[in-house]
Amino acid sequence: MKTFPSKKKTIINDPIYGFISISDELIFRLIEHPYFQRLRRITQLGLTHLVYPGAKHTRFQHAIGAMHLMGQAIEVLRSKGHAITDEEAKAVTIAILLHDIGHGPYSHTLENSIVEGISHEDISAIFMDKLNAEFDGELTLALKVFRDKYKKRFLHQLVSSQLDMDRLDYLRRDSFFTGVSEGVTSTERIIKMLNVVNDELAVDYKGIYSIEKFIIARRLMYWQVYLHKTAVASEYLLLNILKRAKEIAGNDGELFCSPVLKPFLHNHYTKKDFLKDPGLFENFAQLDDYDIMASVKAWANHPDKILSTLSNMLVNRKLYKIEIQNSTFSKEKINKQKTKITRKRKLKGKEAGYFVFTGTLINSAYNPQSDRINILFKDGSVKDVAEAADLLNISMLSKAVKKYFLCYPNGL
Amino acid sequence: MKTFPSKKKTIINDPIYGFISISDELIFRLIEHPYFQRLRRITQLGLTHLVYPGAKHTRFQHAIGAMHLMGQAIEVLRSKGHAITDEEAKAVTIAILLHDIGHGPYSHTLENSIVEGISHEDISAIFMDKLNAEFDGELTLALKVFRDKYKKRFLHQLVSSQLDMDRLDYLRRDSFFTGVSEGVTSTERIIKMLNVVNDELAVDYKGIYSIEKFIIARRLMYWQVYLHKTAVASEYLLLNILKRAKEIAGNDGELFCSPVLKPFLHNHYTKKDFLKDPGLFENFAQLDDYDIMASVKAWANHPDKILSTLSNMLVNRKLYKIEIQNSTFSKEKINKQKTKITRKRKLKGKEAGYFVFTGTLINSAYNPQSDRINILFKDGSVKDVAEAADLLNISMLSKAVKKYFLCYPNGL
Amino acid sequence: MKTFPSKKKTIINDPIYGFISISDELIFRLIEHPYFQRLRRITQLGLTHLVYPGAKHTRFQHAIGAMHLMGQAIEVLRSKGHAITDEEAKAVTIAILLHDIGHGPYSHTLENSIVEGISHEDISAIFMDKLNAEFDGELTLALKVFRDKYKKRFLHQLVSSQLDMDRLDYLRRDSFFTGVSEGVTSTERIIKMLNVVNDELAVDYKGIYSIEKFIIARRLMYWQVYLHKTAVASEYLLLNILKRAKEIAGNDGELFCSPVLKPFLHNHYTKKDFLKDPGLFENFAQLDDYDIMASVKAWANHPDKILSTLSNMLVNRKLYKIEIQNSTFSKEKINKQKTKITRKRKLKGKEAGYFVFTGTLINSAYNPQSDRINILFKDGSVKDVAEAADLLNISMLSKAVKKYFLCYPNGL
Amino acid sequence: MKTFPSKKKTIINDPIYGFISISDELIFRLIEHPYFQRLRRITQLGLTHLVYPGAKHTRFQHAIGAMHLMGQAIEVLRSKGHAITDEEAKAVTIAILLHDIGHGPYSHTLENSIVEGISHEDISAIFMDKLNAEFDGELTLALKVFRDKYKKRFLHQLVSSQLDMDRLDYLRRDSFFTGVSEGVTSTERIIKMLNVVNDELAVDYKGIYSIEKFIIARRLMYWQVYLHKTAVASEYLLLNILKRAKEIAGNDGELFCSPVLKPFLHNHYTKKDFLKDPGLFENFAQLDDYDIMASVKAWANHPDKILSTLSNMLVNRKLYKIEIQNSTFSKEKINKQKTKITRKRKLKGKEAGYFVFTGTLINSAYNPQSDRINILFKDGSVKDVAEAADLLNISMLSKAVKKYFLCYPNGL
Repeated sequence: MKTFPSKKKTIINDPIYGFISISDELIFRLIEHPYFQRLRRITQLGLTHLVYPGAKHTRFQHAIGAMHLMGQAIEVLRSKGHAITDEEAKAVTIAILLHDIGHGPYSHTLENSIVEGISHEDISAIFMDKLNAEFDGELTLALKVFRDKYKKRFLHQLVSSQLDMDRLDYLRRDSFFTGVSEGVTSTERIIKMLNVVNDELAVDYKGIYSIEKFIIARRLMYWQVYLHKTAVASEYLLLNILKRAKEIAGNDGELFCSPVLKPFLHNHYTKKDFLKDPGLFENFAQLDDYDIMASVKAWANHPDKILSTLSNMLVNRKLYKIEIQNSTFSKEKINKQKTKITRKRKLKGKEAGYFVFTGTLINSAYNPQSDRINILFKDGSVKDVAEAADLLNISMLSKAVKKYFLCYPNGL
Repeated sequence: MKTFPSKKKTIINDPIYGFISISDELIFRLIEHPYFQRLRRITQLGLTHLVYPGAKHTRFQHAIGAMHLMGQAIEVLRSKGHAITDEEAKAVTIAILLHDIGHGPYSHTLENSIVEGISHEDISAIFMDKLNAEFDGELTLALKVFRDKYKKRFLHQLVSSQLDMDRLDYLRRDSFFTGVSEGVTSTERIIKMLNVVNDELAVDYKGIYSIEKFIIARRLMYWQVYLHKTAVASEYLLLNILKRAKEIAGNDGELFCSPVLKPFLHNHYTKKDFLKDPGLFENFAQLDDYDIMASVKAWANHPDKILSTLSNMLVNRKLYKIEIQNSTFSKEKINKQKTKITRKRKLKGKEAGYFVFTGTLINSAYNPQSDRINILFKDGSVKDVAEAADLLNISMLSKAVKKYFLCYPNGL
Repeated sequence: MKTFPSKKKTIINDPIYGFISISDELIFRLIEHPYFQRLRRITQLGLTHLVYPGAKHTRFQHAIGAMHLMGQAIEVLRSKGHAITDEEAKAVTIAILLHDIGHGPYSHTLENSIVEGISHEDISAIFMDKLNAEFDGELTLALKVFRDKYKKRFLHQLVSSQLDMDRLDYLRRDSFFTGVSEGVTSTERIIKMLNVVNDELAVDYKGIYSIEKFIIARRLMYWQVYLHKTAVASEYLLLNILKRAKEIAGNDGELFCSPVLKPFLHNHYTKKDFLKDPGLFENFAQLDDYDIMASVKAWANHPDKILSTLSNMLVNRKLYKIEIQNSTFSKEKINKQKTKITRKRKLKGKEAGYFVFTGTLINSAYNPQSDRINILFKDGSVKDVAEAADLLNISMLSKAVKKYFLCYPNGL
Repeated sequence: MKTFPSKKKTIINDPIYGFISISDELIFRLIEHPYFQRLRRITQLGLTHLVYPGAKHTRFQHAIGAMHLMGQAIEVLRSKGHAITDEEAKAVTIAILLHDIGHGPYSHTLENSIVEGISHEDISAIFMDKLNAEFDGELTLALKVFRDKYKKRFLHQLVSSQLDMDRLDYLRRDSFFTGVSEGVTSTERIIKMLNVVNDELAVDYKGIYSIEKFIIARRLMYWQVYLHKTAVASEYLLLNILKRAKEIAGNDGELFCSPVLKPFLHNHYTKKDFLKDPGLFENFAQLDDYDIMASVKAWANHPDKILSTLSNMLVNRKLYKIEIQNSTFSKEKINKQKTKITRKRKLKGKEAGYFVFTGTLINSAYNPQSDRINILFKDGSVKDVAEAADLLNISMLSKAVKKYFLCYPNGL
């Protein structure tokens, strides 16, 4: 019997799952690392708390929660006779713990704004390599699993697939903190139904209703939370604020900001810069929501009228008005709004674009081309859920739904 | 029948109570006011999320929740035949909504640090007067209720007493977000048991068990959350950081900080300054958690070793080690730690006090002298709960428990 | 302000909604009536507790819960400006309270077995007429609403339609007690979204996702609970037991049974008998689950081998084995099982049919022909949800799904 | 790695804990045994559902739930380095599963009524010996643990002590189904804090608040549920019904009842009869709530006026009126009620005692003499919780509280 040295054993109290134990020393040290602690200061859902006030939860909580579910999944698969060594178990646990470590401030909101042409997945990869070097190669197997280079593919699929622990945690967590009960899923039941066939993850047939519910819950969460129109309007507002700030910084304008944010306002960094400049990376590794919001708050008093107006709108929650429809907006309608704001605020050239703009929202809940969910029948055969569910035509759900939005100032 | 103009009616989705409707226009406008929106950026429990990661909830959520409970309490009291006019109902609702509006960054943590000799209640009073002026006296009755100047005292007691809507909400909310189920209380049941005798709030006899549970839950929350030793250590760390920053600022040292925080670092303001300088107040009205944390993060790279060390400790969660006991700590023990850190870090004079210090924690759950909870018996008589509860000697609980703590650097 | 005489006011503690107040005297007296108290002894889900052990909840709880939701619905509709008089409110509350009062033992299971050619709705109607007579016509308006004879049709629809309080309660309640979280619905949100257009019930557009979720949850509950194969096998087992008992009684065989069950075993009553024989009705009004199960337990020792075998199977939960498939079962397969059991148990003629039989399961979640759910758009227009939901092809769901089952003894 | 043969693995869906897996074949066969299946027909809380309608849960659910918690406790203790062999784990699991198997109809209500001078623990012991014989001695170690004859005493304490899995489950379960949130306890936290010192169960110091909460919650559940005055009145009503029925049976009166109940009405069996007459035991092993209630329902039409009146009172919930006070009731008060009913109903001799009677209720939450809860301090020392809790004087709680009640007919 293995006994854990109590000095390193930690219990985290999670409002959703209760007590989460951390008993492995390497994992404990990863969580204590400043790179990981930074996730305490990055909200999971960006500005969504402007719509659902409870949604202040962080990437830190999510990563710990996903790690907890991974422990359950390992236990279930082992109990069904699938060999997972202790080393593999640790690797897949580390992989899920670090899967989102590259997220910048406000999670998805500022991707491609703070830095351009580089995704949070790319940045996560850099973080993991740094940590692997720092921990003398102890993360090598975790990285192999994360990058899908390991023979037991199901381990990678536990980290990244239609039914990975990432999704299972975030749907439940986002549902819990927003209060949107439509997103509640039977996390526990789905995990109990996991299985493995030919080294690929599968779901026992009797879990098919839970899978249906899961796919639908995810779709409902998209429309009610992730693509909620007011949340979308807030995100675009923040994007426009940063765009304007960069414009001012580019013209050598005076601009208060936190020290670690500064280089990102005054330069346009790309993936290449990131890979070759370790100082730049370390700078990024200190950025979080506080740098952004403290700066935006200061900009509400900036002499540039556009910057101060937009910043004020965000700080005091006077968001854009946003309309959503199934077809594109007419040029007339857009231009009418642009003319109005241009006159009212005496704007020049393209400046109206900071206040009036359009865009699209796309959601496809399940894409049978790229994302399979294997259903394992009692006779040992395997089918994709889109074929197996005779009850609900899941392939219908895969139809991408596209909507158009128009933002303009509310009562300005 | 009254119909509400739909344009102003808002529903807020709260993860605890579900949908909270706001149908009164004045209340809607108060919530939209920048003074109130600021509460979205002030955590209810300061740095407690360093212990309970879920505890990122804000003063905004709490104020809205307490307002919701007030609506239920009004309904219950009316259904028992106690007259509450629509005007009184609105006043008491506004009073609870604004009861905490004077809180500064990190709620209680920085009271008497950002500004000195002025409580958050004093500042709340200033906020309310400003708002009353701005809203042409529409808050006059609310202020009367808040200040206990209104004949129907029970209205004030719904805002501030042992069983006010403030406590009923915060115990439940803090329990929900921390995951500490010991604090769960039967909010709904207590509200259903409220009554009024001689214009004072009372509780129907059959609610006595719920009251016992409530008093005990509150006590358990004190030790497990509000006075949790790691949370206490975090708060003192932040206090010491600000103290050091003020010291540096007082010596004209260079110090990054957000514009609205600046005056508070460079000056020692008192209540008098607040009352006579409207600019100072407006400055305070823009301060929130983001100003503090963005500055602390920058200070982690400050040339002053004490400031940078303390700031780093907070940012990367290398908190003080804290010991708790029932008696005072010996001078030897304290001095031993001070000597150690002084040598190690080559400190001068009293600087060791930034790293090694003691203090006390006090909790009394129920004080029958100052706080009565009236129990209303079936025969119409009224007794304090401390006398009425023959089952549990509640007066025992009122004994103030005092503990002593010693903080020192962990592994430095 | 109305004050309620406390002697008649009752609070029921419901594990789902918390405290449910009953403040109207007529409603209080209806609940106290033996006809209604009988519902305490009739399980809501028949024998489903043999699959989900928690599902022991009763018709009594469900009726009280549906009444509670009705109170909320009335409040919401009034707050949106739709006039509902106090008299109408009481009528619709009584209508929902009594909507299921005609259910016999084990709810749906024994419909058309205890008595034939008469539905529980027919029997409910008789109960209501009796009660109306006993209460001097005070239920007249309630009956009008129940029978859809009242001008404000939306009142009837709150009692009986796609979104009535009956369904809203039972889905949530059955989900709670079975532990099948797939059936959890946003009851509160749906009720908040109710509205009225041209005296018909409608749902505000922003509630459309909740409606989708509701329709899907209902479908999932059908397959996971209401048509769960083991529950189906249990119901058919009980039906066969009663059929055999009636056969024996018809042949003047000795048969223990409770006094109120006796006439129903020895006679074949129809709707006509019910209407003309008040004694027969009063007998039925005393029947509940206890009469059935106490008799079945005694029959486990009956000399008739078929009756005792079947009864033993139910009492000790040695249920039929049941297979389910999308097409009919071949005659060969059925006959093979029948031959086997006939030989083993030396059965005569058609007696094998007590042990081996087939049947069908049908579920259509939403039938846009008969059941409309009106969605009310912001511009005032109304569409059926099957047209309004561009996201999910709800009409797909309306396709009736038909499955076939085969039951035979397990290991006999 | 152990793989479970899927054919015997079963998952039970519990509304409180979710999925409960049963993977051991012996345990599976015990659950399938008719002795254990009988618990499906015995309510955990007797007639308490007449007060809390949700409380229809059964001994079956409770036994399965306690078994589930045992699995968690074993895992926790093993993770802390305490050796528990697979054989011991199975034994302690069986012991908790069967701990209540001797309960008769309506659980505690009819103890000493159906049979006299024999407790449900005695009967459980007989059940276990029978099962051990039937299963060829495979339960021998389980019995040793159950009877506290095994060296590792903590195993017995997991089955029977202040913190056994029995209490942990029933407090939570009864709280869940009644809706009395005062009884909610942190089951999970307490189990995580379990430890072993010198083969005795202990609780880690940091769990002390949870223990306090647990002791208090238990006390509150006593007064709000287990000793709820209306529940007490219901139980005494049923006891009086059976007493009268036995009296009639003893006088050779005609009396409908189910076959397995019959011998218990016509004879006065004692422990000795039970031990020597296997047929009597088998008879008892078929008795459940259905035998009782079906008989009571029939007795509502019995020619004996006392029996029919009492039976009617129970069936239609016209319970006794019950008064509770801290001192005994005066003879005058009691006699006044007796005289009233004697006249009104023309009773003879002592018959008034069926309608008017007094009794006592006693509750002591924690008895430090007989029940210790060991608290394990960080320095390895152990103290009883009554000494360790400096915050709350737990020994206060141990003071037995005694109350007196008087029952008499309500409005007869």
